[in-house]
Amino acid sequence: MTVPARRRYDTESLLEVAVAVFTERGYDGTSMEDLAHASGLSKSSLYHHIDGKEQLLRLALERAVEPLFAVTREPRAVSGPAIARLEYVVRREVEVLADRLPYVALLLRVHGNTEVERWALEQRRAFDKIVSALVAEAADQGDVRVDLDPAVVTRLLFGMINSLVEWYRPDGARDARLAPADLASSIVRLAFDGLRR
Amino acid sequence: MTVPARRRYDTESLLEVAVAVFTERGYDGTSMEDLAHASGLSKSSLYHHIDGKEQLLRLALERAVEPLFAVTREPRAVSGPAIARLEYVVRREVEVLADRLPYVALLLRVHGNTEVERWALEQRRAFDKIVSALVAEAADQGDVRVDLDPAVVTRLLFGMINSLVEWYRPDGARDARLAPADLASSIVRLAFDGLRR
Repeated sequence: MTVPARRRYDTESLLEVAVAVFTERGYDGTSMEDLAHASGLSKSSLYHHIDGKEQLLRLALERAVEPLFAVTREPRAVSGPAIARLEYVVRREVEVLADRLPYVALLLRVHGNTEVERWALEQRRAFDKIVSALVAEAADQGDVRVDLDPAVVTRLLFGMINSLVEWYRPDGARDARLAPADLASSIVRLAFDGLRR
Repeated sequence: MTVPARRRYDTESLLEVAVAVFTERGYDGTSMEDLAHASGLSKSSLYHHIDGKEQLLRLALERAVEPLFAVTREPRAVSGPAIARLEYVVRREVEVLADRLPYVALLLRVHGNTEVERWALEQRRAFDKIVSALVAEAADQGDVRVDLDPAVVTRLLFGMINSLVEWYRPDGARDARLAPADLASSIVRLAFDGLRR
């Protein structure tokens, strides 16, 4: 995955185009032809930049996966009561989603037909496991309502958070626009304390 | 949409097959050929049952849309404080999703390329509006936390509830299996009172 420094800018913008095309047509349904067309490059200049579409997919998915895992290593994610660590991870996860929206959207749509896709699915499972372990630990420490099953809580938390890729547009229509930190606070309040006053 | 009584059973089982194929391949990507193959019927017997794939799509989507709207006309959805009506509608919506899982999954994946799909998207918007009006009314009555924006609450509620079609399997793996009423209670607790003890 070596990208020479002089080509970095081009690879970056190519990546943006590729993510948009992969998301619209599906990764399986995207050919190098389609990527050439969308980027305005000839197929041969495209091959000058990258080995093939799988390399672009891997680079794109890394942009979602790496910051998500970085969150789980941050100081407030690793010390303190589990409920506080969970709250911190949820808040930061939402901020990462807001910041890396197209890349996370792609990650959530991956099917698992290629090696890179299977790697991405493994990363998602590993991340889910970290969060679900935090929920279970918080429950063990008596900080989760006893009438809620930790496994169900985990699924619903992810359901709520992942839905962002469907509707959240930081610079879109009025009711879909919200600063990432405010969005993260809303989700934390709703999930941890509920909507009822 | 008249389905003669003597063919009702056949149309019903055909519908199940069609929903599975539409969901797997996408409605656009499904041909009458595919439906014939999946149902084990010849294309001509298929046309004996239905006018075309759009008729099957409409019948399938009605199975999701009709019970959702029926919920909004139930007595507890139309009288009492808005927060109680909202809670009731959320609970019943989850029960309908659990009961009509493949049909609702199809409804959530519709693109809007045909008249039937556009009708379905309109129904979804109308249903969203009913729920979002309930959230706004509950907020006006002082029963929603003032630090939560009603529009955001509505989106997150739908995000959490709609995620069911991705993971909930009433007779699947242990942590995805839960009686519909228990699932509905979990969602109501989490959304209204939060996970924190």
